[in-house]
Amino acid sequence: MNEQYDVIIVGAGPAGLTAAIYASRADLKVLIIEAEVNGGKLSKTYEIENYPGIKSISGLELATQLTEHGQKFGAKLISGEVLEIGENEGKKEVRLKNGDVYLSKAVVVATGTKERTLDLPHADEFTGRGISYCAVCDGFFYRNRNIAIIGGGNSALEEALYLASLAAKVTIIVRRDVFRADATVVDKVKANEKIEIITKHLPEELVIENDRIVGLKIRNVESGEVSTVDCAGIFPYIGADPCTSFVDPSILDERGYILANADMSTAIPGIYAAGDCIRKDLRQVVTACNDGAIAANSIAKVLKE
Amino acid sequence: MNEQYDVIIVGAGPAGLTAAIYASRADLKVLIIEAEVNGGKLSKTYEIENYPGIKSISGLELATQLTEHGQKFGAKLISGEVLEIGENEGKKEVRLKNGDVYLSKAVVVATGTKERTLDLPHADEFTGRGISYCAVCDGFFYRNRNIAIIGGGNSALEEALYLASLAAKVTIIVRRDVFRADATVVDKVKANEKIEIITKHLPEELVIENDRIVGLKIRNVESGEVSTVDCAGIFPYIGADPCTSFVDPSILDERGYILANADMSTAIPGIYAAGDCIRKDLRQVVTACNDGAIAANSIAKVLKE
Repeated sequence: MNEQYDVIIVGAGPAGLTAAIYASRADLKVLIIEAEVNGGKLSKTYEIENYPGIKSISGLELATQLTEHGQKFGAKLISGEVLEIGENEGKKEVRLKNGDVYLSKAVVVATGTKERTLDLPHADEFTGRGISYCAVCDGFFYRNRNIAIIGGGNSALEEALYLASLAAKVTIIVRRDVFRADATVVDKVKANEKIEIITKHLPEELVIENDRIVGLKIRNVESGEVSTVDCAGIFPYIGADPCTSFVDPSILDERGYILANADMSTAIPGIYAAGDCIRKDLRQVVTACNDGAIAANSIAKVLKE
Repeated sequence: MNEQYDVIIVGAGPAGLTAAIYASRADLKVLIIEAEVNGGKLSKTYEIENYPGIKSISGLELATQLTEHGQKFGAKLISGEVLEIGENEGKKEVRLKNGDVYLSKAVVVATGTKERTLDLPHADEFTGRGISYCAVCDGFFYRNRNIAIIGGGNSALEEALYLASLAAKVTIIVRRDVFRADATVVDKVKANEKIEIITKHLPEELVIENDRIVGLKIRNVESGEVSTVDCAGIFPYIGADPCTSFVDPSILDERGYILANADMSTAIPGIYAAGDCIRKDLRQVVTACNDGAIAANSIAKVLKE
């Protein structure tokens, strides 16, 4: 006999955990399944200044608080990777990679997005030893050394500020000549003496000596000219993709984001979605929490009818 | 010369203050105008357990933190009541009751809702001395006495729990025989020995002796039979209406809620709306904050184009 729930929430980031708070408070039996780190991407973020009501907090701390809060009203949180969501006699059947199966009346997909990885020769083999996707996790290894950051969005710039506090020098490599980031963050980056900005360049090749990264060759997108940035560490922030490989493609857009209605339902009855993994304009902690609250409220309404 | 801003936000509740955080961080010059209490209705709420990431906090404390956060990045907060939003040479002209006029490129209406008042003879004259719309403000005056609460929604029940900690007895009078409230709250109310629930009754008449409220006559909605609840205080939680009297009726629905698009724009260019005052399904602190973030982000995008 498989364990049965009212709601299974896939993903324990801000969206999933908020869905858990609201669903549990509506007296629903809730299971949350997280494939990686509780709190989601938030747990890898250095500092959050725009979660309303909390003026400044580390991502890890907010992630921890959300994880506790999500379980406060009775939701069960387990570790596991969802392989498939099927149907079983009118219920949703959630199958995990380890073979476990759970049943529920409704599912909320709140799996977020995953950072896109650097597409250069040898990039895979140097991930974790020269290439990192988590400044908070790995920044310390590069203290007093040179770091290159690739990207011009909020993540790239926020992590640049963090890394500049550790590194000897941070070089930001941006493809365009403008940033896609909040003005306050851009101002801080420009004012930081340890940070150099190189616009209109793309990463071209890792420079490797004695099995270690010692630099990054970059190419000018206009002239094609190649130059080298000396660095021991490379932090790419070049976008993200939704974690929706297990989701029925009929409810995904062309980039893999889930098409959710205003009440967070999808075209498949019983499947709801919330947070960064849905098609939307603004991906923030507070907007993810909003989606989770709405998804849970919609499910509670339907199940009580 | 009138003061000019990029964005004027009407209302300093969770929606307006979050709009202020996001607009200021996008380097916009922001003015927030609040007619009553900073933090909005939140400041009158006893306890909040479902604002994600904060397991339990008093409404007033969260209101205070949001008010500080809303001004942290440079937004200016003033006290005033908006009378009208007009046009002036391509800008929005916001006129206050005191005659002051402010200009801006965009306006966010985030005025929330106001509790509906009790429609009984003499109710107005006893408001503040027997009839109260704020348990946190006035509950103390009724300690060890009997209180009647009218309504069956989340507000009614949450405030009943709070008032039960002070009063000798709390009687909840509900029109229907079910509650429109979260199951956890209903359970707590039912388990509380100081709380009595009377279903299928409506308030009929204030019982006044020596210029004081001493009871409330209630009528059975089925039999029409009238009985009396002895009480010194009456707290009505009978719904709320949006504070949108100054808003162009062309963007309001039949109940006065603002019709906002997914990006929080309205049919009037430059007018955005956020929070409880818009037409939506779920009115919560976190959903209001979501709307504010989206409104500010949408405005920042348009103004930078």
